[in-house]
Amino acid sequence: MNKLKLGIPKGSLENATIELFKKSGWKIQVSSRNYFPDIDDNEITCTLVRAQEMSRYVENGTLDLGLTGKDWIMENGSDVVVVSDLVYSKVSTRPARWVLVVKENSPINKLEDLKGKKISTELVSFTKKYFAERNIPVEVEFSWGATEAKVVEELVDAIVEVTETGSTIRANGLRIVCELMQSNTQLIANKNSWKDSWKREKIEQITLLLKGALQADGMVGLKMNVPADKLQSVIALLPSLNAPTVSNLYHKDWFSLEIVISEARVRELIPLLQKSGAEGIIEYSLNKVI
Amino acid sequence: MNKLKLGIPKGSLENATIELFKKSGWKIQVSSRNYFPDIDDNEITCTLVRAQEMSRYVENGTLDLGLTGKDWIMENGSDVVVVSDLVYSKVSTRPARWVLVVKENSPINKLEDLKGKKISTELVSFTKKYFAERNIPVEVEFSWGATEAKVVEELVDAIVEVTETGSTIRANGLRIVCELMQSNTQLIANKNSWKDSWKREKIEQITLLLKGALQADGMVGLKMNVPADKLQSVIALLPSLNAPTVSNLYHKDWFSLEIVISEARVRELIPLLQKSGAEGIIEYSLNKVI
Amino acid sequence: MNKLKLGIPKGSLENATIELFKKSGWKIQVSSRNYFPDIDDNEITCTLVRAQEMSRYVENGTLDLGLTGKDWIMENGSDVVVVSDLVYSKVSTRPARWVLVVKENSPINKLEDLKGKKISTELVSFTKKYFAERNIPVEVEFSWGATEAKVVEELVDAIVEVTETGSTIRANGLRIVCELMQSNTQLIANKNSWKDSWKREKIEQITLLLKGALQADGMVGLKMNVPADKLQSVIALLPSLNAPTVSNLYHKDWFSLEIVISEARVRELIPLLQKSGAEGIIEYSLNKVI
Amino acid sequence: MNKLKLGIPKGSLENATIELFKKSGWKIQVSSRNYFPDIDDNEITCTLVRAQEMSRYVENGTLDLGLTGKDWIMENGSDVVVVSDLVYSKVSTRPARWVLVVKENSPINKLEDLKGKKISTELVSFTKKYFAERNIPVEVEFSWGATEAKVVEELVDAIVEVTETGSTIRANGLRIVCELMQSNTQLIANKNSWKDSWKREKIEQITLLLKGALQADGMVGLKMNVPADKLQSVIALLPSLNAPTVSNLYHKDWFSLEIVISEARVRELIPLLQKSGAEGIIEYSLNKVI
Amino acid sequence: MNKLKLGIPKGSLENATIELFKKSGWKIQVSSRNYFPDIDDNEITCTLVRAQEMSRYVENGTLDLGLTGKDWIMENGSDVVVVSDLVYSKVSTRPARWVLVVKENSPINKLEDLKGKKISTELVSFTKKYFAERNIPVEVEFSWGATEAKVVEELVDAIVEVTETGSTIRANGLRIVCELMQSNTQLIANKNSWKDSWKREKIEQITLLLKGALQADGMVGLKMNVPADKLQSVIALLPSLNAPTVSNLYHKDWFSLEIVISEARVRELIPLLQKSGAEGIIEYSLNKVI
Amino acid sequence: MNKLKLGIPKGSLENATIELFKKSGWKIQVSSRNYFPDIDDNEITCTLVRAQEMSRYVENGTLDLGLTGKDWIMENGSDVVVVSDLVYSKVSTRPARWVLVVKENSPINKLEDLKGKKISTELVSFTKKYFAERNIPVEVEFSWGATEAKVVEELVDAIVEVTETGSTIRANGLRIVCELMQSNTQLIANKNSWKDSWKREKIEQITLLLKGALQADGMVGLKMNVPADKLQSVIALLPSLNAPTVSNLYHKDWFSLEIVISEARVRELIPLLQKSGAEGIIEYSLNKVI
Repeated sequence: MNKLKLGIPKGSLENATIELFKKSGWKIQVSSRNYFPDIDDNEITCTLVRAQEMSRYVENGTLDLGLTGKDWIMENGSDVVVVSDLVYSKVSTRPARWVLVVKENSPINKLEDLKGKKISTELVSFTKKYFAERNIPVEVEFSWGATEAKVVEELVDAIVEVTETGSTIRANGLRIVCELMQSNTQLIANKNSWKDSWKREKIEQITLLLKGALQADGMVGLKMNVPADKLQSVIALLPSLNAPTVSNLYHKDWFSLEIVISEARVRELIPLLQKSGAEGIIEYSLNKVI
Repeated sequence: MNKLKLGIPKGSLENATIELFKKSGWKIQVSSRNYFPDIDDNEITCTLVRAQEMSRYVENGTLDLGLTGKDWIMENGSDVVVVSDLVYSKVSTRPARWVLVVKENSPINKLEDLKGKKISTELVSFTKKYFAERNIPVEVEFSWGATEAKVVEELVDAIVEVTETGSTIRANGLRIVCELMQSNTQLIANKNSWKDSWKREKIEQITLLLKGALQADGMVGLKMNVPADKLQSVIALLPSLNAPTVSNLYHKDWFSLEIVISEARVRELIPLLQKSGAEGIIEYSLNKVI
Repeated sequence: MNKLKLGIPKGSLENATIELFKKSGWKIQVSSRNYFPDIDDNEITCTLVRAQEMSRYVENGTLDLGLTGKDWIMENGSDVVVVSDLVYSKVSTRPARWVLVVKENSPINKLEDLKGKKISTELVSFTKKYFAERNIPVEVEFSWGATEAKVVEELVDAIVEVTETGSTIRANGLRIVCELMQSNTQLIANKNSWKDSWKREKIEQITLLLKGALQADGMVGLKMNVPADKLQSVIALLPSLNAPTVSNLYHKDWFSLEIVISEARVRELIPLLQKSGAEGIIEYSLNKVI
Repeated sequence: MNKLKLGIPKGSLENATIELFKKSGWKIQVSSRNYFPDIDDNEITCTLVRAQEMSRYVENGTLDLGLTGKDWIMENGSDVVVVSDLVYSKVSTRPARWVLVVKENSPINKLEDLKGKKISTELVSFTKKYFAERNIPVEVEFSWGATEAKVVEELVDAIVEVTETGSTIRANGLRIVCELMQSNTQLIANKNSWKDSWKREKIEQITLLLKGALQADGMVGLKMNVPADKLQSVIALLPSLNAPTVSNLYHKDWFSLEIVISEARVRELIPLLQKSGAEGIIEYSLNKVI
Repeated sequence: MNKLKLGIPKGSLENATIELFKKSGWKIQVSSRNYFPDIDDNEITCTLVRAQEMSRYVENGTLDLGLTGKDWIMENGSDVVVVSDLVYSKVSTRPARWVLVVKENSPINKLEDLKGKKISTELVSFTKKYFAERNIPVEVEFSWGATEAKVVEELVDAIVEVTETGSTIRANGLRIVCELMQSNTQLIANKNSWKDSWKREKIEQITLLLKGALQADGMVGLKMNVPADKLQSVIALLPSLNAPTVSNLYHKDWFSLEIVISEARVRELIPLLQKSGAEGIIEYSLNKVI
Repeated sequence: MNKLKLGIPKGSLENATIELFKKSGWKIQVSSRNYFPDIDDNEITCTLVRAQEMSRYVENGTLDLGLTGKDWIMENGSDVVVVSDLVYSKVSTRPARWVLVVKENSPINKLEDLKGKKISTELVSFTKKYFAERNIPVEVEFSWGATEAKVVEELVDAIVEVTETGSTIRANGLRIVCELMQSNTQLIANKNSWKDSWKREKIEQITLLLKGALQADGMVGLKMNVPADKLQSVIALLPSLNAPTVSNLYHKDWFSLEIVISEARVRELIPLLQKSGAEGIIEYSLNKVI
């Protein structure tokens, strides 16, 4: 029987990934006694893999498909198929940024000032390559975590560290010199698996549903009743990309109008709809939008 | 650029308020390192302010708009515009009540018995005014919290304290003499901000959405299929205030019927609908009802 | 005034039961200070009772209605009306199984090998009767919990214990000899209460709503727009048992199609629907399906 | 090689027992993966057993020695050797008392009032025997825990329940009719093990050290310097049972005086000692007092 | 019977105070159900009182004796007897300091710069008096907590707040302008209670033991064997204030030497003692040093 | 002023190290806001450093002295002075062992079977060198933690992992092939610091006290009174290495006898001492034994 070997990222992405699969239609259960999470689909086997190492195992075929960060794919220099970018919720979360960080009162103000200096980071290969391409000789050493402490304690001159808002960095009395890379989660496949027709179809099913669930995350359903003579002006208010579903009501001079819309636009739209004559406006949540 | 300065109450109301704004369409993020919560609306800036102090800052224009309890607005005697009462969930929670509390075996049984006695409370101005209006001379002292303990320990004769059900009071062997005030959350605006047309419109947008989210809290959507000959008897069962949305089905002798209804009435209605011929009845949740 | 006395099982089933009643339309509040939980229905009074003892109190009329496991009804040999089986979520949870368990390296391989052996269990009466019916003489002693430890420690030869997946049993180096009984939650009524017409109607109302909430648990609503010429092929894809609600759209050559479907089938169906021409497919959650 | 099989009570006594053995000189390690706790003594093997069942396994020789409550030894009617009473800390904790409890407003005021009533308890055999000896016919049923709730909810007329201070009982609006038994922890041995000379000696070693550790619990050492001419008056202050250790100091006219004394008496004694001329008084803790 | 009414400070000092009394010889038990903690001394009754309010109740005789901070005694301007300063551990904890705090980039650099500014603090009376004595007109308002936030948010110009190390202040981007007062815990008595001979003696007993326990906190016992010919050189090393206890050993040419010494000096002393010929040096803890 | 730069290992050893320094006489305080822990000794500055990186910073002189595992010193190949082995508690804890681990059913049974296989480990340099010295070609890759999972999931053939008892390894269905190294905590110094006379003396002071505290860990003081005629037989029972301190009592025919002894031997010794005539035996704890 055909099986697709799927890698789930262990650690910080783990719960979000399992939650996303649940919304997409697959129940994954991780037990503390077992390294292979259960999944309610006989065509898939799951494995928990560190995000840092995922692309290695997808590249060498140990896994057919996996989710991990673009940063670690680049660090590993892995030759894989990027099936899809999965931006977990467009609105609220910002992409992870790898930044060059120094002490607030450091004389370092631009990349060139790093010449001959010592940098500590979890992303050694990427950082070395980044400075080599710019012809800036630096010493890069691997950091075992607690990276920020090293600049504070003046053990190194600078660090390359990941951040979302930069607030932790500032709170420790540090300063961002510049951004080196932005990263987000990607769905990656092994090159041979991608050529196998059964596996390709299975991967595309998973991709369709994952994207449907992600798309629903910032979307809601909006439903309202509109009298016939105001239908055109109400429709004119709606975002042009989303064709509304308009159905006749029993009382012929009224219509029921339903749209799927970004949750973020609702607060602007509702006052306008109300003024244009829509009544009985309700908003409800969506699990998937395809 | 125009900005509305919004005050979020810190402490016991904080999470409920952020949750309510989320349902209304605004994401507020409080971080432990930053006193200014993020909000995903460029026209608003948020500030965390103690509920007790909120009305002061709205009154003097430091804030344009704020949420706080009616009790603290009265205690501060603030001159502000009360834009709306916000009763968080009509069904399950009762209003907060400020009550006069004595020891169970105290000889005090009515307001007049307090003459010449000592009262401890967090609401000093209100309590003084309350007794002065009734010409009952009392000594009122400010309490630093743990107010109930003071009656138990007989440090004072009575306290004025807030409660919902009175159960904590009884559990401590205390007795409620009478109620002095009921309080609920209110949305208040600065008087000048209310006159400014841009701010006024922004406040009204926020109010409309907050109320839409609150109204949805105890409501659900109910949808069912009904054959043509039973449509009138089914409609007769429905609460008269909520006009149902009736739409034609493809098979002409059936209709799809949809209503928004108080969740508390569903358990009575469903058995009746079923007996009257409704089929495929489903219930779903609502985010907003305008 | 008529009152129905309802028993809520204390302990492991307690939260799930309260959650189920909430989805069904009743809010039950358990407070640590009060043995009688509040319920927002004047026709019901609630009492918390241990699942093991529930059927005794329903049998002798102290309670009219109660929820408990089939296993404990059998252990007590109670003469009650089984109103309904309540299988909390068909898909994800398996029924509880009472199994005969020995040490992995025990010589016991079938029921007959237990002859003259000592068995520890919480289900003493049931186990005695089970072996007596098969003419196998055994010594059965009551276990105060931590039953599995007794086989590991060789205090007894075998235990009769409850399990869902058997994984804890295997993890302790134990082996299942055979299954003695399957159990699930049941709604049981007192025989006289069942004959009383007012109580009977109230019990049937509760049963209808509980089952409606349980049925909604693994179901979702699916809605899509379909062009007229593809309507038949799309309908052909749908599970035959669930008649779709098809309504005319404003633009006459399109239909809105809506079905209620098992959540587990959605991931297979959506790719097919999309290929057949359905557009704007959305999925949403349901609270009740009657 | 000789081995003594020791039963450690699982549950509420478990931690206190392991702590007591640690003070006595044995390190017991309970791991969540293993039912047989490790002990750093090759002559002992440990087994975790429920306190309720301990005496059964000591009686039938599965265990040589065990710790459990006197109450459960009586309930099981086990024929074992009671080696020693172990009163964990004489001062602070009171013995556990099994009491007959009714609702505060119940008409039951003495044992005889129970005639024909229903009693729920975990101690079925003991309770049946207790009432039978007094010729009072009662119905006794086994309680699966949450016993106090049953009187509050009026499911039964009375309960027999364990308590230390009675405060939980009063807090629930219940009333103690009378006390049926006092219980404390006992060290019990199997009759044949007690006759075996090697096992007897091992049991007596354990007993000596356990009692030495318990005795040290409320005791402290007190040491001071006293001039020769005040020695007699200082000694006269000391509790007569504890002979002080008096040693000569280098400067011949002073003595060093050291006693072991109940911690509770120190606060009275120190002001008196100081007035009588003792100097450099220090107090230190003790692990064992033999 | 005579009773001394003792006030225990509620809140941040509560646990440390109960711990200190335990070391001193009194067991105080606070239960969540009771505002009067139990104490194992029939001559004392305990009451939990907020540290801020303690001196009021000692001054007016509601309490005979209480522990609280010097800061709150000053704020209240209470006329009480200060029986003793209780510096909980001289070495590790620094005194609490009330400091004037502004935003890091504020133009305020000295007290005079506050002229006409707004200050928020929990210590209103003290602060007003402090500035009045220096003829600097300021507006002082009471703060409900979260005081630091107010400067960050620029709601006020400065705050007067308590700190130990100042690290929280700096972490929030704030700056200390100057220190206004240092505070520590004090044992205070009512003036009349102090004149009553029975109460005076009881207070002095408590004081003696509390100080004995506090003094033991940073002290340890050190014991060693010393040959006769090195006794003088070893004694010469010891701190002159602490006379060592020297006793003859059985083997006449050796002495046993024992001292009580500050724990902080041990690490310097031990290397010297060893070089001077002391052997078998041991260190042990002390509960009380009188 | 002279300063010794001391490295405290961050993470799993952190608390045990701070506890050890406390028993030795130095109070170290780690705050979450500050990377430099406070120490109450003006001659020392502390820095928190990952155990894995400690030896690097000691080697290059950033630190003078540090504590870390022997395993990481070897992995880094650092050229430092090993001042002392610090075996935290000889009795209860076993040394950490780095072992080669495979799946239970793996064909690998000895080192040679690893030829051409892939190994994952945190100790890459050490492992490579270990196999190179034995001429066994293997592929060694760095593991980001969760190392055991990799063998279970068959991502690699073997791992080199640290363990104390091996129980986690067996619980995961893995097997230890052989042990590669044993490790324990070591106190290491920079080579130049060791040559500096001031630093050398400071390091030796720290070492003496750390070892004194460690030695006290499994030791207790035992004190008893013995009549003159039994003194020799009692002394004969005592371990020969520990000379007892015998002092004359005031009553000339009795002696006070005091020894320092391994806690583990007390339980054997006390019954013998008692039989030989010793009375008033007490045991007390020790902080340091030099």
